[in-house]
Amino acid sequence: MPKHVDKPVILAEKVQKILVDLEPLTRKIFLTLDPPSPMDNRADVDQVRQILERTYGSVNIPLSLMSKVPILCRSSDWQVTATIADTGQGWKLIDLEPGDTTKEQYGLAIDIGTTTVVVYLINLCDGTVLRHAADYNAQIVHGEDILSRIRHAAEPGGLLQLQKAVVDTLNNLIKRLCPSPMGTDKITAVAIGANTTMIHLLLGLNPASICRAPYTPIVNNPGLISAKELGIDIHPLAPIYCLPSIGSYLGGDVIGGILVSDMHKQSDVSLLVDIGTNGEIVLGNEDWLVACAGAAGPALEGGVTAFGMRAEPGAVDRVSIDPASGQVKYTTIENAPARGICGSGLVDTLAELFLSGIIDRSAHFQNGREDYVIVPAQASALGKDIVVTQIDINNFMATKGAVNSATDLLMENVGVAWQELNHFYAAGAFGQYLPIESAITIGLYPDLPRSAIVRLGNSSGEAARQVLLSRSKRLEAEEIAAKVTYFELNANTAFMEKFSGSKFLPHTDLDRYPSVKRRLQTRV
Amino acid sequence: MPKHVDKPVILAEKVQKILVDLEPLTRKIFLTLDPPSPMDNRADVDQVRQILERTYGSVNIPLSLMSKVPILCRSSDWQVTATIADTGQGWKLIDLEPGDTTKEQYGLAIDIGTTTVVVYLINLCDGTVLRHAADYNAQIVHGEDILSRIRHAAEPGGLLQLQKAVVDTLNNLIKRLCPSPMGTDKITAVAIGANTTMIHLLLGLNPASICRAPYTPIVNNPGLISAKELGIDIHPLAPIYCLPSIGSYLGGDVIGGILVSDMHKQSDVSLLVDIGTNGEIVLGNEDWLVACAGAAGPALEGGVTAFGMRAEPGAVDRVSIDPASGQVKYTTIENAPARGICGSGLVDTLAELFLSGIIDRSAHFQNGREDYVIVPAQASALGKDIVVTQIDINNFMATKGAVNSATDLLMENVGVAWQELNHFYAAGAFGQYLPIESAITIGLYPDLPRSAIVRLGNSSGEAARQVLLSRSKRLEAEEIAAKVTYFELNANTAFMEKFSGSKFLPHTDLDRYPSVKRRLQTRV
Repeated sequence: MPKHVDKPVILAEKVQKILVDLEPLTRKIFLTLDPPSPMDNRADVDQVRQILERTYGSVNIPLSLMSKVPILCRSSDWQVTATIADTGQGWKLIDLEPGDTTKEQYGLAIDIGTTTVVVYLINLCDGTVLRHAADYNAQIVHGEDILSRIRHAAEPGGLLQLQKAVVDTLNNLIKRLCPSPMGTDKITAVAIGANTTMIHLLLGLNPASICRAPYTPIVNNPGLISAKELGIDIHPLAPIYCLPSIGSYLGGDVIGGILVSDMHKQSDVSLLVDIGTNGEIVLGNEDWLVACAGAAGPALEGGVTAFGMRAEPGAVDRVSIDPASGQVKYTTIENAPARGICGSGLVDTLAELFLSGIIDRSAHFQNGREDYVIVPAQASALGKDIVVTQIDINNFMATKGAVNSATDLLMENVGVAWQELNHFYAAGAFGQYLPIESAITIGLYPDLPRSAIVRLGNSSGEAARQVLLSRSKRLEAEEIAAKVTYFELNANTAFMEKFSGSKFLPHTDLDRYPSVKRRLQTRV
Repeated sequence: MPKHVDKPVILAEKVQKILVDLEPLTRKIFLTLDPPSPMDNRADVDQVRQILERTYGSVNIPLSLMSKVPILCRSSDWQVTATIADTGQGWKLIDLEPGDTTKEQYGLAIDIGTTTVVVYLINLCDGTVLRHAADYNAQIVHGEDILSRIRHAAEPGGLLQLQKAVVDTLNNLIKRLCPSPMGTDKITAVAIGANTTMIHLLLGLNPASICRAPYTPIVNNPGLISAKELGIDIHPLAPIYCLPSIGSYLGGDVIGGILVSDMHKQSDVSLLVDIGTNGEIVLGNEDWLVACAGAAGPALEGGVTAFGMRAEPGAVDRVSIDPASGQVKYTTIENAPARGICGSGLVDTLAELFLSGIIDRSAHFQNGREDYVIVPAQASALGKDIVVTQIDINNFMATKGAVNSATDLLMENVGVAWQELNHFYAAGAFGQYLPIESAITIGLYPDLPRSAIVRLGNSSGEAARQVLLSRSKRLEAEEIAAKVTYFELNANTAFMEKFSGSKFLPHTDLDRYPSVKRRLQTRV
């Protein structure tokens, strides 16, 4: 086993247990109606509306439900359960069932990633996650990264293909979450966290303008959309709420990260970083929030490094190297024979190569070496050595440099010094799994007290759960979106200067990394 | 020419000229947007919403319009016209057009009668009626009166047939009102006045419960429905507002009558009567309103009296009889050869027969006579005498008796004496044309100073115009609906007692009819 096993709390999982105040996007109300009589001949639809309006204010009853009302009231002895949905402008009746079904209220919290889609089935009665299921985003066949998706959307029929792909992915996951006899039509509300491009593709909106200056999406805050408009196989009138975006490269998934971290409510300064193909960085506190985003370089994604792969069975995920012997120890996901190295394995490898002196501070192999064997051929499922090359390391340095430079730029712009940084939140899929010690060692994460470093976990999914369950959280998400000041990196020449200044391990300025500096001194 | 030509003001036509405060159901707003720039990269949809929300509060932008926004903004140099619709819970964007089209705003005010449908094309910019068109309700082939329509709706496929029939009637009239190049999709708002059954059939709701105790409709206040939900060929997202009903036999058409009369705003007491196959009676003032409704008997409708016909060319519409010679003078509609007698002709005939002593106070022919020739065979288009029979007179007395009894019952219940009655409003199609003097002579209308008797005209259509144009009028209509206390005649035994007490001309109690009493004394 690797020697530095860190098991930090994953915030999204922790807060899942903390119930938000329950004011879900849809609610069920059990109604006991008065049968009409000569003394009370109110119309059935009006009586239902009047009772609901006493508690909820304006309630709209759509024509499609009106003919159902009298039949249902009479067949159920005037005891019915109404499902009403928050329209953002009031309430709308979306279902009426015989008897008391208030114990059966289900919603979905969804995280649509460019690579992976996760769907959580939520009990709207108490806010708990009943089950969850994940799968690759079926859009992947049309391109692995966001830019290739945007390009595909511009081709004839491409946009519809991409929309259908993600809707199919969702519908398959939803079916898995609702084994019969529970019909998927019992699901009456959805909240989604996703990046801006994923939201555009889901809504069937052409994301072309997202990657063209001045980088304006069609919409940041789409409001509530019904399931039938998107073809999602749940209750057709179920409202779908998308976490708002701030801009083309700062989506609802990042807003979700801020929401789950609570950095927007703290008096001291936090840094939130989500590293993927695109990196997003947010800095701020209760008074201000600044953010930037840009291509981080795909160093940590599968398929770019020589033996890089996604975090699937057979991926090397943890690595340690004995400084004296240079001997490598590693683990693989599900202990399957090694097929490649995933992001967390790569970060461990680089940190260990550095701490062992096999690469120097400028991240170059010493002694003419051009790669390093992590898994020898005889132990590898590929029948050949699994190695890390100088090119892999250079790719990683570009990612690290981008993150460092962007962070520096934000801090300089708002006049915050490194010493003032109190919290670090690792967001996104990589943030969930990257080994914290190694990430600090190579300068990807700041060298803060370890208790100040928090993995957010699937904050996009957790934020979706919170806004699904709470009107005040929806307002909070929208306030965050309105509050964040966005720095456009693509338009910023200072960024490139910073970039060239951050190409050392862990950083050009070693004093920013006191714990790493101490370890290096110990080694010497 | 008949001797007593009365030309009272028709209120609905008078108030048409009085502009209500313009706050129509849909509005157009010209927007000059900021092209996105590196300094302002708001999403296009969000920018449109933000500008509208500055003035109108919460504005919903439907998904179906989102993809149109960026294309339209760019092709029109960022100058667009937004059409927003009042949803009752806020506003909703329903259209976006290039340039400034705020001068072109059209709506429809519609009166759907059991027999006749009238559509008014309204300029939403100033509230004026541009054109109107009328036609028979195509539902007539499935039954002339409301009860036969309700019966037909219960047959397999019947409800859909009836809905399609009235929608076809509307679509044909709308096409006539919008000669090319004006597309019917320029019409963005509709308000409808109609009885409760007509509204149910339009909405595709089964009206069966309307004619079964305890006489509860499915809905009295359906709220706003979109044109596409009903298949009306105008802008698909145009909101349709139906004047609310009070109950099965007291529909939006009656609420419209009250609204146009302003009786709910006056300190003294008014009586409003709408006589048709069903009669509706409303009594009240600014503090209270009571109403009842019931089968008035079809005495005034075509097809029931021996030579009865609708008010079409060739219908005898005015009649006078010389008391000395018994000679009849009459006019016909459009001066066409006489084919029958319409409601106004019948009322004139009965009054003249009574004043001439040809029928007595109990409405029976004298001297063994069984009918009276109005148009002799040689002058008739039918080639035979057009007569009024004792049976016709008996039918009419049933109608009159029902109206008198119901009015008496209402007045007794609220403790209002005849002397306290200050205004009389004649509503509905018959109220628009019945000769006032004759109607008083035979006791159908109360014997008030003639200036206190007002014909409402097509108050249902005029009320539709008012609620189309004014949010406060819509609230007023809903307040009226909430304020009216409904007396169920079918459940009231006192009604039958009153009924037998009102079978004399003009009334059992002649002192209620001082001007008629004077004329009778003059005659004697």
